[in-house]
Amino acid sequence: MQEDLKIALRGSFWVQECVPENLDIKRSVFRTLDENCDDGTILASSTSNLTPDQFTHDLKHRARCVVCHPVNPPFAIPVVEVVPAPWTEKSTIEMAVATLKDIGQSPVVLNKSVDGFLVNRLQYALLMEAFRLVQDGVASPQDIDTAISQGLGTRWSFMGPFETIDLNAPQGVTDYCARYMGGIERVVATQDNQVKITQDTIDTVAAAMKQQVPDDKRAARTEWRNARLLALHKHKLDAEKWDNNTK
Amino acid sequence: MQEDLKIALRGSFWVQECVPENLDIKRSVFRTLDENCDDGTILASSTSNLTPDQFTHDLKHRARCVVCHPVNPPFAIPVVEVVPAPWTEKSTIEMAVATLKDIGQSPVVLNKSVDGFLVNRLQYALLMEAFRLVQDGVASPQDIDTAISQGLGTRWSFMGPFETIDLNAPQGVTDYCARYMGGIERVVATQDNQVKITQDTIDTVAAAMKQQVPDDKRAARTEWRNARLLALHKHKLDAEKWDNNTK
Repeated sequence: MQEDLKIALRGSFWVQECVPENLDIKRSVFRTLDENCDDGTILASSTSNLTPDQFTHDLKHRARCVVCHPVNPPFAIPVVEVVPAPWTEKSTIEMAVATLKDIGQSPVVLNKSVDGFLVNRLQYALLMEAFRLVQDGVASPQDIDTAISQGLGTRWSFMGPFETIDLNAPQGVTDYCARYMGGIERVVATQDNQVKITQDTIDTVAAAMKQQVPDDKRAARTEWRNARLLALHKHKLDAEKWDNNTK
Repeated sequence: MQEDLKIALRGSFWVQECVPENLDIKRSVFRTLDENCDDGTILASSTSNLTPDQFTHDLKHRARCVVCHPVNPPFAIPVVEVVPAPWTEKSTIEMAVATLKDIGQSPVVLNKSVDGFLVNRLQYALLMEAFRLVQDGVASPQDIDTAISQGLGTRWSFMGPFETIDLNAPQGVTDYCARYMGGIERVVATQDNQVKITQDTIDTVAAAMKQQVPDDKRAARTEWRNARLLALHKHKLDAEKWDNNTK
């Protein structure tokens, strides 16, 4: 195994580590990579919840280490989070970004590592409000899902939250904030992230999901999701082609 | 005008009020509607940030009053938030939901009125985290937009946040929460909704958006957004048809 890895590393310009999310395992794998890789090799980690400084600080090649976190399922979701450790070289980040773009992914770069990176931080902020709305008896889990899937999620599938608000006021973001920030602050002041989601609430959501997709249909539903994601990806590529042809 | 409204109301089963978001104007319009509508007419308000009790409490037909909040642009975004006042009759809500479904919209029902309803509460939770990430220097506005538009936004365009996590753990929501809720709580504990977004941060986001879409291209970009939303809507209908044919 060790021997195989040595052979595999010879002349490699990129290593994508995908071992379990366990700090000891990551440390051990990165130590082995460090001892056997070429000086120019990029050592990329798939971790979603460890910061790269934790398993690269004592390595010879630590300047070439960087987190490149893909989102599941990576064949249908283009975004990859590129997260440097304090000692990651700028050229490592640039090469990672260029390579990821080359293979059709959409890299986003964090200037520094934060817990949850971008995608999960944004997801968790919305998800916890969704749980609180169920816990407070405001709406059913299904209707909260519909509010996104038939509402904002359609827009967010091709433009982000900032461009969404930019186009929602005549003069753009500054105008939007002048008009609405007061109301937004009033609403988010009622969104307490310290509220504990109870097991009752979790059970309510779980029961609603099981009603939609019973246990024996879960595998088929996951295949359906992946097929829909791929169909959407193709739809977006077609739409972008059309955009470019009509510019 | 008053005379025209009387004539228009005669025999109408649904009134959709779309006057400016000003409580005095809403009150005055609803008073006029109340005096001239039939007993069975649904009096629906398009308001997004007033609760229905504020402008319907003293009306004869208050049991037939309900908020039906469409999301912009309503011809391309199916969701409609149905929000009762404490005195809204159950039959009013049922008829509103049935009618909205009939015309191809996707109604979601709130059991009680909360500031921001569902869509904006969920949007604001995510949006404020996006602003905080810019304010903390973690990533650029463009990369935060990409994290959504090439990441979670693609999934959320056809399934909500709960079904997303339901399919992200082998045994569903309960399993997901057992595995990840600790990490989620750790992350959201660092998302302080009391943090004020500074004018500097707003200017940074506004400048990034203007770099993408300069002022003289805003109108064209809005048309592009609407065309993309409609194309996506058609794509989703086709995908659902395909789902049904292969069931």
